[in-house]
Amino acid sequence: MALWDKGYEIDREVLEYTVGKDYIVDSKLIPYDCRASAAHARMLHDIGILNQDELEQLLAGLNEIVELWEKGDFLIEQEEEDCHTAIENYLVAKKGEVGKKIHTARSRNDQVLVALRLFEKEALAQIRDRLDEFSRALPAEDETPLPGYTHMQRAMPTTVGMWMGSFAAAVDDDLMLVDAIVAVIDQNPLGSGAGFGIPVFEIDRDITTRELGFKRVQENPMYTQLSRGKFEAAILGVLSQIMFTMNKLATDLIMFSMKEFGFVKLPERFCTGSSIMPQKKNPDVLEIARANYHVVLGHELAVKSLMGNLISGYNRDLQLIKEPLFATVETTYQTVRIMTRVVRDLSVDREKCAEAMTEELHATEEAYKLVKEGTPFRDAYRKIGERFSGGE
Amino acid sequence: MALWDKGYEIDREVLEYTVGKDYIVDSKLIPYDCRASAAHARMLHDIGILNQDELEQLLAGLNEIVELWEKGDFLIEQEEEDCHTAIENYLVAKKGEVGKKIHTARSRNDQVLVALRLFEKEALAQIRDRLDEFSRALPAEDETPLPGYTHMQRAMPTTVGMWMGSFAAAVDDDLMLVDAIVAVIDQNPLGSGAGFGIPVFEIDRDITTRELGFKRVQENPMYTQLSRGKFEAAILGVLSQIMFTMNKLATDLIMFSMKEFGFVKLPERFCTGSSIMPQKKNPDVLEIARANYHVVLGHELAVKSLMGNLISGYNRDLQLIKEPLFATVETTYQTVRIMTRVVRDLSVDREKCAEAMTEELHATEEAYKLVKEGTPFRDAYRKIGERFSGGE
Amino acid sequence: MALWDKGYEIDREVLEYTVGKDYIVDSKLIPYDCRASAAHARMLHDIGILNQDELEQLLAGLNEIVELWEKGDFLIEQEEEDCHTAIENYLVAKKGEVGKKIHTARSRNDQVLVALRLFEKEALAQIRDRLDEFSRALPAEDETPLPGYTHMQRAMPTTVGMWMGSFAAAVDDDLMLVDAIVAVIDQNPLGSGAGFGIPVFEIDRDITTRELGFKRVQENPMYTQLSRGKFEAAILGVLSQIMFTMNKLATDLIMFSMKEFGFVKLPERFCTGSSIMPQKKNPDVLEIARANYHVVLGHELAVKSLMGNLISGYNRDLQLIKEPLFATVETTYQTVRIMTRVVRDLSVDREKCAEAMTEELHATEEAYKLVKEGTPFRDAYRKIGERFSGGE
Amino acid sequence: MALWDKGYEIDREVLEYTVGKDYIVDSKLIPYDCRASAAHARMLHDIGILNQDELEQLLAGLNEIVELWEKGDFLIEQEEEDCHTAIENYLVAKKGEVGKKIHTARSRNDQVLVALRLFEKEALAQIRDRLDEFSRALPAEDETPLPGYTHMQRAMPTTVGMWMGSFAAAVDDDLMLVDAIVAVIDQNPLGSGAGFGIPVFEIDRDITTRELGFKRVQENPMYTQLSRGKFEAAILGVLSQIMFTMNKLATDLIMFSMKEFGFVKLPERFCTGSSIMPQKKNPDVLEIARANYHVVLGHELAVKSLMGNLISGYNRDLQLIKEPLFATVETTYQTVRIMTRVVRDLSVDREKCAEAMTEELHATEEAYKLVKEGTPFRDAYRKIGERFSGGE
Repeated sequence: MALWDKGYEIDREVLEYTVGKDYIVDSKLIPYDCRASAAHARMLHDIGILNQDELEQLLAGLNEIVELWEKGDFLIEQEEEDCHTAIENYLVAKKGEVGKKIHTARSRNDQVLVALRLFEKEALAQIRDRLDEFSRALPAEDETPLPGYTHMQRAMPTTVGMWMGSFAAAVDDDLMLVDAIVAVIDQNPLGSGAGFGIPVFEIDRDITTRELGFKRVQENPMYTQLSRGKFEAAILGVLSQIMFTMNKLATDLIMFSMKEFGFVKLPERFCTGSSIMPQKKNPDVLEIARANYHVVLGHELAVKSLMGNLISGYNRDLQLIKEPLFATVETTYQTVRIMTRVVRDLSVDREKCAEAMTEELHATEEAYKLVKEGTPFRDAYRKIGERFSGGE
Repeated sequence: MALWDKGYEIDREVLEYTVGKDYIVDSKLIPYDCRASAAHARMLHDIGILNQDELEQLLAGLNEIVELWEKGDFLIEQEEEDCHTAIENYLVAKKGEVGKKIHTARSRNDQVLVALRLFEKEALAQIRDRLDEFSRALPAEDETPLPGYTHMQRAMPTTVGMWMGSFAAAVDDDLMLVDAIVAVIDQNPLGSGAGFGIPVFEIDRDITTRELGFKRVQENPMYTQLSRGKFEAAILGVLSQIMFTMNKLATDLIMFSMKEFGFVKLPERFCTGSSIMPQKKNPDVLEIARANYHVVLGHELAVKSLMGNLISGYNRDLQLIKEPLFATVETTYQTVRIMTRVVRDLSVDREKCAEAMTEELHATEEAYKLVKEGTPFRDAYRKIGERFSGGE
Repeated sequence: MALWDKGYEIDREVLEYTVGKDYIVDSKLIPYDCRASAAHARMLHDIGILNQDELEQLLAGLNEIVELWEKGDFLIEQEEEDCHTAIENYLVAKKGEVGKKIHTARSRNDQVLVALRLFEKEALAQIRDRLDEFSRALPAEDETPLPGYTHMQRAMPTTVGMWMGSFAAAVDDDLMLVDAIVAVIDQNPLGSGAGFGIPVFEIDRDITTRELGFKRVQENPMYTQLSRGKFEAAILGVLSQIMFTMNKLATDLIMFSMKEFGFVKLPERFCTGSSIMPQKKNPDVLEIARANYHVVLGHELAVKSLMGNLISGYNRDLQLIKEPLFATVETTYQTVRIMTRVVRDLSVDREKCAEAMTEELHATEEAYKLVKEGTPFRDAYRKIGERFSGGE
Repeated sequence: MALWDKGYEIDREVLEYTVGKDYIVDSKLIPYDCRASAAHARMLHDIGILNQDELEQLLAGLNEIVELWEKGDFLIEQEEEDCHTAIENYLVAKKGEVGKKIHTARSRNDQVLVALRLFEKEALAQIRDRLDEFSRALPAEDETPLPGYTHMQRAMPTTVGMWMGSFAAAVDDDLMLVDAIVAVIDQNPLGSGAGFGIPVFEIDRDITTRELGFKRVQENPMYTQLSRGKFEAAILGVLSQIMFTMNKLATDLIMFSMKEFGFVKLPERFCTGSSIMPQKKNPDVLEIARANYHVVLGHELAVKSLMGNLISGYNRDLQLIKEPLFATVETTYQTVRIMTRVVRDLSVDREKCAEAMTEELHATEEAYKLVKEGTPFRDAYRKIGERFSGGE
């Protein structure tokens, strides 16, 4: 039974189409909704709407749900549409009349917003940890000389450490962006009702803010709705930055582990084979990491495109943001984790690197030496350039 | 066990990351792979590689797989990576030595390509049928007058029939695009091996082409690989055209069913409610249809972005095309179907339409009448314009 | 003065913001609008609205505009907003009263739609020619052996001709898509007015259809508006397919011309240098071709995203489609042309190719030989696989 | 003459294709490059490479360039490719030998990176100011009651002030994102050479960092190249957030100014007309603002897509980032400015708002009153719901 049940039957096909996979996808939000529901119940108690006994029954019920969920035993029925309904239905079924009171002075919009926000904060914190770990795993001190490329042509000398260090520096900036977006979204939407505030009841939003560990109240109720999609788009933007860092590293490693370069080598147990070519050992893990950047871009675009041209106030379109958000969080988390293992177990082939340190990499250095001896740079450049023009 | 099993253990986490949801997603391809495997087996028999008994055993095995699959009893293990391996493993397990022969003169790339191609042709044919049905359901003959809008302002008179007919016309063109992309992809990739042809064996690609009902052989083996992603991108482009047609209709219907317009009305059983506002009857089905256009754009973009900047020959990145393709096919199919029901059960409120046929809608007509009487158009325009400039 | 001038002053900043670069961008449409305006005038004459003298004056005026335009002397003022207004203003200024009659029984929407449609047909025809030329320039007969790559690892033998031929095959399919989209858009929108038909006057749309060489009338006036953006999105989808073909070729050539491969060589005069590294000769032309695929994707996405969630009937948003359309047409045309020159002047280094034809490329062949002698494929695969597992 | 001139002629068509519009687009960067070049020259003087007289000549030359540029008299020739070359060429032409020394110990990559970075910081600061101004212009204190909508259906009461205040709150968060991205990019790339540092010379990057007002040195030279595109993508992500805020406001205003609502009214001089319908006054400015969000998404996507799958080190592809970046900065700046004027001059029609405050908006309030009197919420909801189910 849906929270909005009106006594008439909704068309089955319409139900299936509108609910989509929400009744499965939403499972991820259950512990967050329960935490927020508990905070809401405590607030209702503090302002005198629930008595102590009612509060305890509700908290017990919410605890039971989390325990069932942890064992995989709390399922959402398609008719319930989403986790928010399933939670209320459980409370009514198990706790009776008091279960009908939990939804006092809040809306399902409240529930989605606050549960998503809690999920997002936790997801970003976990991705932050994985990024730290990744950064520490990079061999940024390795001084093995390596050719640096520009335009995919040998350009100037670099080292394995400078190369790897560039990813550590990228992650430093990615972390700044993670912190920035967390600072933006760290505001409590609970108490905004359906996006226009709660009439009649004098709710106390500071209580739930404190209980849930938010930095501040998201004051304007219409802004809570405006921020739906907007915040998720910004989060996806940060995650796609992280995925870009991984894409670049994967692209480098795929090329530099080719037989034609051989600068690095993946451990055998990281490689997969071909069904027809017996000799193949393929860097599939890197190819998937590379490709996942674009998959994440697709999710980012879907969210940013679908939220355009919609008037203020909740529109059901925004429901479709959850799937790309969840998918991107998971992909980013897993990609950073697997790339950490890749860089940790990567071996550098010092010999192959040394062989590749050919003379032309030092052309700039040679020109600079002439400059030091007094030749203007542009003239030194031409002089050294001529030396290489024949051989190419 | 993977088709490329080499005797060393692959890292568990790497396996999970690279296989992703393929071992679930791929289920959709099983009947298509079995059809193609049967055609391949028949060809191997025709060119003398399999004897009659071996052929029959393989065909029986493939039949068993399809039967199991139809009952939901053919599952792919994560270790098997994909449906192609699961099928070969089943044949070996049940039919012994002959099972090891099915993969003679073909590659897993062959299998994916041909199974996908067969799936795509069938999916497009089914979507075509749904579009026809949708088109017939449109009340394109309804002559109820209706205000036409430009810039979201009342502009000139139109009718319900002209409005609805515009979607029928759009679908006519969408069908042309469906037919065009089917004509492009209707070429048999089976026999291209890993993308460089089949050495040693003299396979006969005409046999499998005929068996599988393709229009022609996709001759150049490297082009079969180049076309992976390329064809899917083109298909997604056509499906996003269809979804755009649906987006436009949904957008119109959402607005025209607002209380402020009231031109049309959705049946009650198509509407859902609010958890907090007892009076609400919301057109969620239309909002989801509208939003799904953008979800499809995200999929299209993911595919088009990920296939860029990759050298010729198979790259594992292309595996990630399957999910957005399957999702888009399903979404498009379901959206056209649900929109067909919507237009079929839609009621037009003739009274509300009539009320909205206000005077300014006829301003152009008035100006034209002056022109007929001899006033140059630009002067008539200014004259009529003045009449409305006060009242607005 | 704008066509819709009402006697009040429009805010300067608003004008600048809404017109944007249209008054420059639109220059491209002038000859097409003049052609369509001439057809419209002839039709007005045929149905008795213009007399012979008026028709001749208008045709003369339109001719003058095209002549001025060809010399770069027909400019659009920002106040005029677009080319359509500029053309009418010229006719009024030079031909007097009759100039005010050209806009009888048509709308600016008519003008934009028909001019764009004519432009698009011509642009697609020209790109078609460039693709034909490109295809003929490919050395698809060159039998030089070349390593084929999968997962960016040496896989199986191929030839320069098979590689190059794969692009010829891709272009064949691109041409099918070009033809398909031309067939779709080849319908005359002129006569649809502002999207709701022309009242009072009995215009004859067959006349303009014949005059302008369209295959058929786009009958439903509301569909002409619905097709705005929709057709352009479909065209951009086809052009991005072509650009993908070019992206793939450019990506291959950049890698295969690296010192580490050396299979092909660009002529020196196609390469650019570095401001600091005297030795560099960079394949910038290929990098720009590669990157332009993504630029085109951005344009495609912009169009597809902006046209969503808008109700039927013209919305000014659609004006912003022109810039990405024109830019993509130009980029595609130029990219195909420059890539034609690249493949024409490319030299294959047969020696470097031969050196790269290492033993492991023949592993599949070796396994197949065992199969021919009676070993089941999966066993032969493992046997040959072991031979290579040490050497890696 | 290009900085990398090698004495051979580059193909004309290749030059045109690779340079594209850079020689025009780059004009925007000239003052920033001159500032950075002056800082570089001062550093070269400090470390003893330039003497006092040489420094003064170079500074004078750079000043002259800025003065010429301000008058529109400093043009870049297509052969010069970009502004960086044009600046060096000027210095050599006007100041002789010393001009050839300015490029000592730096690369064109250095120049692009630092000039872009300076431009970006300034552009973001200016957009920040416009956002502040916009925020102050919002009538966030207006207590006129207004219907709040969810699912585009009347839902609950709100006020003009709460509605407008939601945009002020959105801008507060947009400003946090602007500040965050400025904090990330505020690092000096000058001194990273071609992406691998400067050999031979002992340059002092702290000097240029101080001179140019950067917060810190971007230490790792390879990271300066990795950050190219990455930073621009992040900036575009922030700008698309701002454009989303504007898109939402524009979408609201377009609907609420429709005759069917009439809640707000744009001043007449902000509206444009139709060429055929004399009565029309269209909100084009809002439609263009709405559409520009999607144009910006297209630019964002182009950048994010093109920078994927490229190995470390400069690739010419990245040149194509400049155009979407410049276009987006300009569009965002202008859109915020024009929307500021719109909200400043908007009039609220209190009467129309009051008329729309119909009974069903208070259904939640009615249900809550029952709850206060003791009815559990879910029962109260059903009771009130029945009251409205007939009338709808």
